[in-house]
Amino acid sequence: MTTPTIEQIYRHVSVRKYKEDPVPNEMIGTIVAASQRSSTSSNLQVWTVVAVTEKSKRARLMELCGNQKHILQAPVFLAWCADLSRLDRVSALLGYEQIAGYVENFIITSMDAAIAMQTAALAAESLGLGMCYIGAIRNNPREVINLLELPELVFPVCGMTVGWPDESPLQKPRLPLEAILHWESYGVEGEEALLRKYDQEIIATGIYGDRQVPVPGKEGETRQFGWMERSAKKVSRPLRVQLSDILAEQGFELK
Amino acid sequence: MTTPTIEQIYRHVSVRKYKEDPVPNEMIGTIVAASQRSSTSSNLQVWTVVAVTEKSKRARLMELCGNQKHILQAPVFLAWCADLSRLDRVSALLGYEQIAGYVENFIITSMDAAIAMQTAALAAESLGLGMCYIGAIRNNPREVINLLELPELVFPVCGMTVGWPDESPLQKPRLPLEAILHWESYGVEGEEALLRKYDQEIIATGIYGDRQVPVPGKEGETRQFGWMERSAKKVSRPLRVQLSDILAEQGFELK
Repeated sequence: MTTPTIEQIYRHVSVRKYKEDPVPNEMIGTIVAASQRSSTSSNLQVWTVVAVTEKSKRARLMELCGNQKHILQAPVFLAWCADLSRLDRVSALLGYEQIAGYVENFIITSMDAAIAMQTAALAAESLGLGMCYIGAIRNNPREVINLLELPELVFPVCGMTVGWPDESPLQKPRLPLEAILHWESYGVEGEEALLRKYDQEIIATGIYGDRQVPVPGKEGETRQFGWMERSAKKVSRPLRVQLSDILAEQGFELK
Repeated sequence: MTTPTIEQIYRHVSVRKYKEDPVPNEMIGTIVAASQRSSTSSNLQVWTVVAVTEKSKRARLMELCGNQKHILQAPVFLAWCADLSRLDRVSALLGYEQIAGYVENFIITSMDAAIAMQTAALAAESLGLGMCYIGAIRNNPREVINLLELPELVFPVCGMTVGWPDESPLQKPRLPLEAILHWESYGVEGEEALLRKYDQEIIATGIYGDRQVPVPGKEGETRQFGWMERSAKKVSRPLRVQLSDILAEQGFELK
């Protein structure tokens, strides 16, 4: 059971090395126009994308987003933004009250942005372009907001590099379908075996290197560094703890 | 500039009327497996989908999600969930600390879920299926969580009906590209004219009916109900104000 679109979906890899060739502005327009066709909550269209091509600005974005060198290398950086400010301006024009900062408003607008950006990713890839999401746009959100001159009620939820691929990275294996897709209700029966099997599979690819790491709380003991170790480590550490303050400053109070 | 994938993207409409024909489970598996190929933050894969086919459960979901009758009519309902619980179980297995409830964790996991669900939407549509997002899954999240037996650190961010389309609804026009796509920095110059032009365009389709509504604060005055009026009204009202409490109960504290 396959289709050209499903085949395109299966070709996705995150590209972190790009050729110098520019991407025409009209091509970015084509991609973003296509992504506008995606579903948007109640047709509110509460997202915006800021396309950055200026080299000095991409250099600054690189610094702000974890020094990932492909941000400077790719000719285009797209900042995908949750955007309630446009409708706030509409509300002001029409005499309605200013938008209140409930968490639901942030969910609607960030989901709208995410849906659009994933459509854009697939559209770009289908044109032969490569892309990579830049979650590190949330490392220094205040500075990114200033750099892109984002008004209140606009927040950059995710970045994306776009350019012509100069590498063909290996696709990472994913979790077994049964670990992700549940039927009728959520269940964890048999999960540990699935996760351990996946861990072995991904260790075998060498993607995460070949190294032993200390076992927490057990002096002298080590174990192989794989997906489980890496993921548990990542999510058990507080990350971007200043975000809620900056969201509140931007008008997204999450109350 | 087009591709089979871009053509597929342009065929999207939200389908709210379905045939009785079932959707084979393997087809849902194909769609979700394809969506697993999408980017996921640091390969964490912090999302889960619960597929509901049981009629009584879909009937209950319909009640909980704003009585949208296509939830009962479509043979499959997919609940797309932000899911940190799987990695929390991995952390417990490996001796790491429990995941802290920072807003960043919720953003990562809800964006992961949104990226996957939009890929799934396009995969489904490419197979001839129709779909409709159900944001109203957040109307009564506690009841949905109980119905689907979602553990702590799992939250249903969006629902989706899937089935064989029994209607061909008109596509809504979208905002002009210039209102959504900014270059180098955010700007609002010329925006009002673009929005008013779009308002006229969407009024002309008749999608939002043909009616006059009172002007807030100006007794006796009326104006045409269009996209601007409808959107401003929608977002200036508090919506789903209990969400932050329920997110906190599920372990997503957004601090």
